[in-house]
Amino acid sequence: MKKPLSGIIPPMVTPLRDNDTLDVTGLEKLIERILAGGVHGLFILGTTGEGPSLSYRLRGELIERVCRQVNHRVPVLVGITDTAFVESVNVARAAANSGADALVLAPPYYMPEGQPELQEYLGHLVPQLPLPLYIYNMPALTKVSFELDTVRRAMDNPRIIGLKDSSGSMTFFHQALGLLKHRPDWPVFMGPEEMLIDAVLAGGHGGVSGGANLFPKLYVKLVEAAQAGDLARARELHAHIMQVSGALYRIGRHSSSIIKGIKCALNCLGVCEDFMAEPFHRFRSGERQLVETRLAELKVAYDKLNL
Amino acid sequence: MKKPLSGIIPPMVTPLRDNDTLDVTGLEKLIERILAGGVHGLFILGTTGEGPSLSYRLRGELIERVCRQVNHRVPVLVGITDTAFVESVNVARAAANSGADALVLAPPYYMPEGQPELQEYLGHLVPQLPLPLYIYNMPALTKVSFELDTVRRAMDNPRIIGLKDSSGSMTFFHQALGLLKHRPDWPVFMGPEEMLIDAVLAGGHGGVSGGANLFPKLYVKLVEAAQAGDLARARELHAHIMQVSGALYRIGRHSSSIIKGIKCALNCLGVCEDFMAEPFHRFRSGERQLVETRLAELKVAYDKLNL
Amino acid sequence: MKKPLSGIIPPMVTPLRDNDTLDVTGLEKLIERILAGGVHGLFILGTTGEGPSLSYRLRGELIERVCRQVNHRVPVLVGITDTAFVESVNVARAAANSGADALVLAPPYYMPEGQPELQEYLGHLVPQLPLPLYIYNMPALTKVSFELDTVRRAMDNPRIIGLKDSSGSMTFFHQALGLLKHRPDWPVFMGPEEMLIDAVLAGGHGGVSGGANLFPKLYVKLVEAAQAGDLARARELHAHIMQVSGALYRIGRHSSSIIKGIKCALNCLGVCEDFMAEPFHRFRSGERQLVETRLAELKVAYDKLNL
Amino acid sequence: MKKPLSGIIPPMVTPLRDNDTLDVTGLEKLIERILAGGVHGLFILGTTGEGPSLSYRLRGELIERVCRQVNHRVPVLVGITDTAFVESVNVARAAANSGADALVLAPPYYMPEGQPELQEYLGHLVPQLPLPLYIYNMPALTKVSFELDTVRRAMDNPRIIGLKDSSGSMTFFHQALGLLKHRPDWPVFMGPEEMLIDAVLAGGHGGVSGGANLFPKLYVKLVEAAQAGDLARARELHAHIMQVSGALYRIGRHSSSIIKGIKCALNCLGVCEDFMAEPFHRFRSGERQLVETRLAELKVAYDKLNL
Repeated sequence: MKKPLSGIIPPMVTPLRDNDTLDVTGLEKLIERILAGGVHGLFILGTTGEGPSLSYRLRGELIERVCRQVNHRVPVLVGITDTAFVESVNVARAAANSGADALVLAPPYYMPEGQPELQEYLGHLVPQLPLPLYIYNMPALTKVSFELDTVRRAMDNPRIIGLKDSSGSMTFFHQALGLLKHRPDWPVFMGPEEMLIDAVLAGGHGGVSGGANLFPKLYVKLVEAAQAGDLARARELHAHIMQVSGALYRIGRHSSSIIKGIKCALNCLGVCEDFMAEPFHRFRSGERQLVETRLAELKVAYDKLNL
Repeated sequence: MKKPLSGIIPPMVTPLRDNDTLDVTGLEKLIERILAGGVHGLFILGTTGEGPSLSYRLRGELIERVCRQVNHRVPVLVGITDTAFVESVNVARAAANSGADALVLAPPYYMPEGQPELQEYLGHLVPQLPLPLYIYNMPALTKVSFELDTVRRAMDNPRIIGLKDSSGSMTFFHQALGLLKHRPDWPVFMGPEEMLIDAVLAGGHGGVSGGANLFPKLYVKLVEAAQAGDLARARELHAHIMQVSGALYRIGRHSSSIIKGIKCALNCLGVCEDFMAEPFHRFRSGERQLVETRLAELKVAYDKLNL
Repeated sequence: MKKPLSGIIPPMVTPLRDNDTLDVTGLEKLIERILAGGVHGLFILGTTGEGPSLSYRLRGELIERVCRQVNHRVPVLVGITDTAFVESVNVARAAANSGADALVLAPPYYMPEGQPELQEYLGHLVPQLPLPLYIYNMPALTKVSFELDTVRRAMDNPRIIGLKDSSGSMTFFHQALGLLKHRPDWPVFMGPEEMLIDAVLAGGHGGVSGGANLFPKLYVKLVEAAQAGDLARARELHAHIMQVSGALYRIGRHSSSIIKGIKCALNCLGVCEDFMAEPFHRFRSGERQLVETRLAELKVAYDKLNL
Repeated sequence: MKKPLSGIIPPMVTPLRDNDTLDVTGLEKLIERILAGGVHGLFILGTTGEGPSLSYRLRGELIERVCRQVNHRVPVLVGITDTAFVESVNVARAAANSGADALVLAPPYYMPEGQPELQEYLGHLVPQLPLPLYIYNMPALTKVSFELDTVRRAMDNPRIIGLKDSSGSMTFFHQALGLLKHRPDWPVFMGPEEMLIDAVLAGGHGGVSGGANLFPKLYVKLVEAAQAGDLARARELHAHIMQVSGALYRIGRHSSSIIKGIKCALNCLGVCEDFMAEPFHRFRSGERQLVETRLAELKVAYDKLNL
């Protein structure tokens, strides 16, 4: 990766036939659909990709298939977050062997560690990784964050090349941007798409937006409008993103609802299977009907955007 | 396992030389030390055993070595808690192949699931397991618990044979005991050793006490005293357990302090290495010195107990 | 108060006609019913008493009426927990003027303070209080606890005369009991009645049990049995307390359900009004019917206890 | 209040001599300093104003003095958040009698209530209030929020005239803005000043920025730049706000550090006393020296902004 990433790097969902079988056809269609939207990278095996729920065998197969299909049209980033250090390294090697471009790591997430421990852990792990690394904040699921001081120290390591922030705290995002004077080439990406507009207007480098599995161009165009300072257009596209979020991500009661909503919608659109790895399950008929209705409403609004 | 377990089933720490190498000699000494205390089972790959931090290869090796060394003198229980369904099944098969007696499962711990999802997950997982299963509540680390209604439903599955409760809530423990009218053969074990006395006096079946790595007889004798209704002796032994807890488990600031304290003390006693798997590290000199001093104080008090 | 309290000190609910009017008749009947059960004190204006929801005028009226009615048959303890220091002192003075015996204080509960601040706060407040003080842990509602070291320091103040622990942590309760070597005359009371048996068997001094508004003798007899080491009887009474808790305290979905359940049951029993101060409201017809049915079931079981 | 508020409404700190004595001279200087910055309103007795820590007598005195001093140059908003319904109404009446313009209410904050209860509570409270009301989200301190559906319903009440959001969630802020189609005259204000730029660029109406106690013009100018779509200037002013936040708000370890930092800085600037109401205390010499140094650094940067 010669120059810093920026733009939209969708956190790809993992099309599955069952707990341990990829939906290979769906995977290919999904990749092509996303790339056709003009995205700037592809992130697999993240939270949206149900990474922690998949067997290591399947993770290896997914990495290989995605890298082959993408074929360097955009960089492929691979999630290696794990509670076991050795397994993180194993996935990282599989990624390098398949030709992936970078790795993404959130803190180990079973027993919470202190920041000094997290700093030592990074110091031990990064030299064993064959690819450069993005660090990834997702405290709602990992309990622990890379806190500001830890991010600052990570910047001193040239093999750590950026931050994805899903902390949900815009204040933290601004604070992280404030550190860029120490490492101007470091991109900072926003996780939650509802704050993508804020992130880019504030000088952030783009987003890892789940909704870009469905409507990649929408997110790409928002980044472009915000980067160009076209506030009116940026707000218009943001309003549609809020509509997508309101329509599809809160149908279920549990925190897996976002992934379920995206997978269900992709299935309604004929892209791929919507099987969810255990312990989750796909939306059933009532919820699916709601998704269908709302997709139709979203389509009307989407068409008016002239993307 | 013909009849229900009861008594002390220590959650064994995993003696390590480095992230992916067992301390084989230490492991053998540790097992013999624990068994000599008269415990009623051995639980490996739990939280105290740093299960989630270990590679699957090492987990397999540990299971095999422990089962061989224990050689059916007591039942061996193997933790299979995982975020990936397939990997839980893989570890369960390794356990069965090595001759282990039962499995222990806490809820998948990355993205929190709802209780109905957890119930379906159990329904899908248990038929694929070659050994009977204890369910295990550890919400501080897994976010989600087997709530009361889910425990009640689990009792209807004959392959689920008991509960270990590390919720920290004595109220929940009492509520769980209240369900035993539906399944009188179901043991309920207490996690935190500070509440072992309460658990047994209330009719619980024993404890999965981390301190039994160090002083197995102390915990065994407490259970016996409490079961016999010898309140005075139970309180005396309980007071010593509180002393162990106060002396050794809160030296570090982070939540891994209990395991660090136990491993450091075992090392001071010449039993095994105190290496901690990433992202943690063993106590360093200042903390270690404190452990040594306190072990000496504990020894004086311990000897007066005439165990 | 000559000697340390022990036994059951019910946290009395506050019978109301509306947000700012006492149900005077109900209050008198309630007090007599509770005292007839042989309790060892009466605690008003606590969490169960909806203290923080009541106007200062009404708090003053309540203190006066309760003290007059009790007329020194048992000690009256008055809650002075407040976010405003000056108002705590004002309520304390009203309590002294009415002849109350002691005060009860949880940490100020709007903006969380550190333990050193809490220690200074106690140091400033206690000299201004005309009556001795119990400290009270209720972290679920106050965010902050009197942590162990703060409790230890509080023991050095002769005007602080005991602890009520509603932390829900039996481990903390044991740790607090462990401090009594520094102040043997200090009673430690258990809040949640589901853990009353554990508390007394462990050497605690009694309970501030909400259910003693309804069935005071049940709780008094449990304390007596546990103190006498009569495990079988203690467990039998404990089982009934668990039944009361399961039957009446979790009917509503919100955390006020315990108080609503107690007030509704008292109303069904003809004792007092069940009006709840804002922002809560009494159980409506469906929930009330459930309470009625369950009270009938409880009565059958209660009668078999031969209290 | 004829037309909707917008712009900067500083949450004024309360200058105190001791727990129950206003620093009257400091108060007057502070008000004049803030008004000279061109702010659009003044909010007293909020979180920053230590409202819940003050006696009702002092709250009344403060309301009266502030209203007299401001003398309708800008609207005065008065916090009435309380655990006791009757006391909220009492403070509201004092506000009306003194000539204040509006009230501000966060949810009652002792025992958490459900959203339906919160909705009923608003329905009962608002008719008793002599002035229009802003609702205020501050879940870190009140536990409970006005959730989206409750905000939507509040919009149907013409006496509820806007929202201040200190949830810290930019996603919630965007969702709240999305409701304005139902009530276009409803201003939505941002609490945390670190997100003021995001709020205004997204169409929000301004901020209740604690730092405007110190540098009111800085916040006013940011709102103007953002409203005018001058991104470059807005980012420049935002960068300085982040500098203020980094320099002054995280000196102490406890959550009261923001207020302590502002009060200490105001004292260093010769404006008013920095006494903190119990259970907090002002910064001591080490922390104060840090504030002085950082104020000097901030001044250099501030002067370059040409405000």
